[in-house]
This record gives sequence, structure tokens and C-alpha cells, in this order.
Amino acid sequence: MEVKAFYWKGDHLLLLDQRELPEREVWLKLTDHLQVADAIKSMAVRGAPAIGCVASYGFILGIKKEDPQKVYQVLRNTRPTAYNLFWALERMMKALKEGKDPEKEAMSIEQEDYNANRRMGELGKDLIPDGANVLTHCNTGALATAGWGTALGVIRSAHYSGKKVHVFVNETRPYLQGSRLTAWELLKEGIPHTVITDMTAGFLMKKGLIDAVLVGADRITKRGDVANKIGTYTLSVLAKAHGVPFYVVAPTSTFDPNIESGEDIPIEERSEEEVKSFKNCTLAPKESRALHLAFDITPAENITAIITEEGIKYIKP
Amino acid sequence: MEVKAFYWKGDHLLLLDQRELPEREVWLKLTDHLQVADAIKSMAVRGAPAIGCVASYGFILGIKKEDPQKVYQVLRNTRPTAYNLFWALERMMKALKEGKDPEKEAMSIEQEDYNANRRMGELGKDLIPDGANVLTHCNTGALATAGWGTALGVIRSAHYSGKKVHVFVNETRPYLQGSRLTAWELLKEGIPHTVITDMTAGFLMKKGLIDAVLVGADRITKRGDVANKIGTYTLSVLAKAHGVPFYVVAPTSTFDPNIESGEDIPIEERSEEEVKSFKNCTLAPKESRALHLAFDITPAENITAIITEEGIKYIKP
Repeated sequence: MEVKAFYWKGDHLLLLDQRELPEREVWLKLTDHLQVADAIKSMAVRGAPAIGCVASYGFILGIKKEDPQKVYQVLRNTRPTAYNLFWALERMMKALKEGKDPEKEAMSIEQEDYNANRRMGELGKDLIPDGANVLTHCNTGALATAGWGTALGVIRSAHYSGKKVHVFVNETRPYLQGSRLTAWELLKEGIPHTVITDMTAGFLMKKGLIDAVLVGADRITKRGDVANKIGTYTLSVLAKAHGVPFYVVAPTSTFDPNIESGEDIPIEERSEEEVKSFKNCTLAPKESRALHLAFDITPAENITAIITEEGIKYIKP
Repeated sequence: MEVKAFYWKGDHLLLLDQRELPEREVWLKLTDHLQVADAIKSMAVRGAPAIGCVASYGFILGIKKEDPQKVYQVLRNTRPTAYNLFWALERMMKALKEGKDPEKEAMSIEQEDYNANRRMGELGKDLIPDGANVLTHCNTGALATAGWGTALGVIRSAHYSGKKVHVFVNETRPYLQGSRLTAWELLKEGIPHTVITDMTAGFLMKKGLIDAVLVGADRITKRGDVANKIGTYTLSVLAKAHGVPFYVVAPTSTFDPNIESGEDIPIEERSEEEVKSFKNCTLAPKESRALHLAFDITPAENITAIITEEGIKYIKP
């Protein structure tokens, strides 16, 4: 059974609550744009392409009762870093202004994202050697997209092309999208994998156990700087120091044509409580301060190639 | 009130159960060497110097009823990486053979470790600039030693010398010795600090927010390679890439005179359950595999200086 993060049902959106995985598969029924905005903010759904798709459906639910400009603003203000959210909402506004059917437009956004993932998988799988140990960070699979996945989609495509691939899964603190979501997806597909704590990655590279790093992206600038889950920059430095190829996999909807440098991408700072506790487990003293940056910026120089549905852009040979 | 990890009480050892911090301060009363061995294995006590001290007291409890050679073996087999454990037990055996009072010897080991920490603090504090943001990993404070601490002891000494120091505390997965123990110690002392997820360190260095990294050690080889908590190697690569000084702080009891290269240090692999869950919180699917290396090796080339009680050994200017 294929993993899906959401299903559009005409008058509501069914959304898999990713906060409950891997323990429980809970589906939320969202009937208006405020519920959708809340689901994005609270990370019931996450992953730049999935957020774009879900926001488009939220837009449709919203404009049934509310001024489109207001709906657009509410959905746009949910999270600041991922570009796909803005890209999808602009596209919905444009469709509306041009008199197109908004529902058809949202469904196109979803279908195009799925197609882009399949295409990136086909292009990217040739970069993965047979028998490779690859490392991935966060979750970039079906749960983060309209299906299949970006970085995890390339791994999936390599696996289904008959290559032997073993995945080291960075657990990805603080939200554990790696150990909770990526491991869950890989289990469902029977793809061999090993969960590691994030800082283990460097030592594994030193021991020659990592053949490639594959990550997704939340926003990519004109010069190829990449905003992605906190920790991506650290991984890129490690990969460079050990001569390990570092691939970013993202659809063109992630590219922000207005920004040259990664320094200009707003980095979301989330609640320190998300670092200091996990569900009902206390991880740090209540009185201590914590810093929770949700993303970091990897400069183009640290990236071997960016794989998009339009082709592979080699930044560095 | 000064933080202490253990108190010797003549016929038993009082041990602060570090697994319960920061939520509860639970003291264990240990009356024989098997209980002490279990406390070391299960990480009720951890930190190379503290393990050495506690094993020495366990040795005294054991030889009251049991053959010293057997007691030595049981305590020695608890954990494989930290050298201080072997160093302390050898010293206890030697004292016994030479007809010295073993209790006096164990108390000397504890007192000497405390003195070494104070001396390292004095030597090391001059390396910390006033107003510095320092980064530390794991817990190397009073809880990891006979008192005061190694890397955290240097930070403590800098703080009490009147310097303004702010500490970024790596949470240190999977056991969270940073967020649970180091933050708890810093709170008690009123030293300003911010807990971060481990992978945040690279991005903070990129932004110029880290002036120095200070870590402890579990074993140091003749050429200056350092075994320490998993993640230390990654931090050393990041520090090197960003031109940030990287200091190792450890007493001479951590130096293994028999090993030239870090490659020859046995790395403890602990249960994968310790990665996949935390207390009653599920962090990964039960069926997924996980790798839990407790330590890694940082080569001498990545280390700016090693601070011991005998002086500062500059590896790299």
C-alpha cells in the first residue's frame, strides 16, 4: 500500500497526523482553511512540497466562505521558510483571477508534484552506486510530498531499479522526522535501513561507511544556496571534509527566483519547548533556555548537485 | 551547594542516579561491587573520571567478601572505552599488593581527581576570552568527575574568575547528558546557557556565534587521538572548518600509555533500544534497526590543545 500524507475529498481534506507516527495512524478531517493553517503550523503535515499541496486545498476550502485575499494571508503566514507554500498559494490566486477552476488547479499542483518526484527519482537513481550506503536527513518521502518523495524518492527509485541500497537514517532532532517518519516509510517498503543519532554521521563518514548524502530542500536561491532542516549544513561540511557526494533533491517549485543568497532566507525559530521536551518526556530543565532553529542554510559550494524534475544541475564536479 | 555525583560512606557508596536527572534527585545506596558494576553499566554514573572513582570504592566493597582478582574483573568488564576505569582499578590492585590501605588509596584517587580538575580549570580559563560563547558536548562537570569537572570545570573557572561566559549546550543524543546534566549543573551555578540540538552547532559556527569548543575525553592515545562521546569527532571537523579552537580537557589518568593510534581504542556499542526510545517515549518504529555507538575518535590533527593538570599540550597552534 502506497504511503500518502493527505487525500482530497471534494469538500474536505483527509490528513495523516504525522505527529502521531510511528505509533498511531490518525487521520484528521479538515473542513476549513483555519484547520488547514493550524495543521501546517503545528506540523501535523510538514515537508515543503506537501505543505504546498495541502495549502492549495486549504485555499479551496477557505474561499467557499471567506475573501480569497484573507484566506491567502492566513495560509501564507503559517510558516516562513519553505518556498513551495508561497509558490502554491500564488498559483491558486492567479488561477482564481484568470477564472480557472481552483479545485482543478490544486489537483494539478498535487499531480505535478507527484510526477516531478517520479522524474527526480529516475534522474537521481543513476547517481546511487549499486551496494551503496546512503545517508539521509529528516523526511523527504511520500509523507513530505504528494507521494514518492524527493531525496527519499531517489532512494526509492534506486531500490526499485534493483540496486542494493542501505539507508542510514539521521533521527533528525528535535522532531525526529528521520526516526519517526523516514524509518516508518522505509519499513513499509522493505528498504534496509539503520537509524542513527544525528552526530554519528561524521564518524561513519570517517570510517568510509557513507557513499552519498541525499537531502531535500525548503527553499533554493538563484545561486543555489539551500534552506533545509536544521543539521543539513553540518552534514554538508562533513561530506565535503570526507569527499562524500552531497545531493539536494527538490522540485523547481522550491526555487525562489527573488533571492540571490541564502543569507536572505528567513529562518523559522520555533518554540524552545520542542527542544526541551518530547511528548511527555522531559529532556532538559524547565528553567534552562533552548534555541530551536528549524532550518539552516547550506551554501552552493558545499553541494555536489541539485536534482530537479528538469534535470541535474551540477554545482561542483 | 556544590554538585557531587557520589559520596563514600565507609561501608557503602551513595550514588546520585543520573538517569533520573533533571526531574528527580534519587540517591542509590550501593553496598557491594556487583551493585557498583551494575550502576556503571547502566549509566546511573557516567563520565570517565567519575567511573574511575566509583569503581575504586566498588573494589573496596568487593574485596571484603570476594577474591580481589574477581572483583577487579567484574568492575573492569563494565565498560570498554574509558581508560580511567582501568587506570583506577590497576592502582587499587597495586596498592593492595603493596600492602597499602585500599580505602585510603580510593580516597586519594577521588581527591587527586578533584585537585586535577581545579588545576585544569585554572590553566584552561585563560584560553576563554571574556564575553565568549563556548560550546560543550555531553557532560564533563561535577557529575562526570570527583567534582568541579574537566571541560565544564574550565568553563566554571572562567565564570568564577569574573569572565562573562555563555555556554551553548549540545543536548548530546541519545542519552542527553548535555540537556539533562550539563544544563542542570549550569542552572545550579547560575551560568548563562542555551540548550541546542546537536546538529545546530555547525550553523552557529557558520554564523560566528561560537568562540571555542570544549570537550572531555574517555581515552587519549600516545599521539593525542581522543575517544569521547559520540559526536565529538563531528564537532572537531566543524571547528576545524570554521577556524574555531577545539580544546580537550582531561586529567592524565585518561591517557593510555599502551596505544599509539585512536584506531586501536575499542568503541562501545550499546543497545539500539537506547536510540529508539527514551523512557516511555517511542522515537522510532520497533522493527527498524538502529546503531548506537557510544563514542567516536577525534584525531590529534583536529585538536587545538589538550589541557591536563600537568599543563597545556598544544597539538596545533
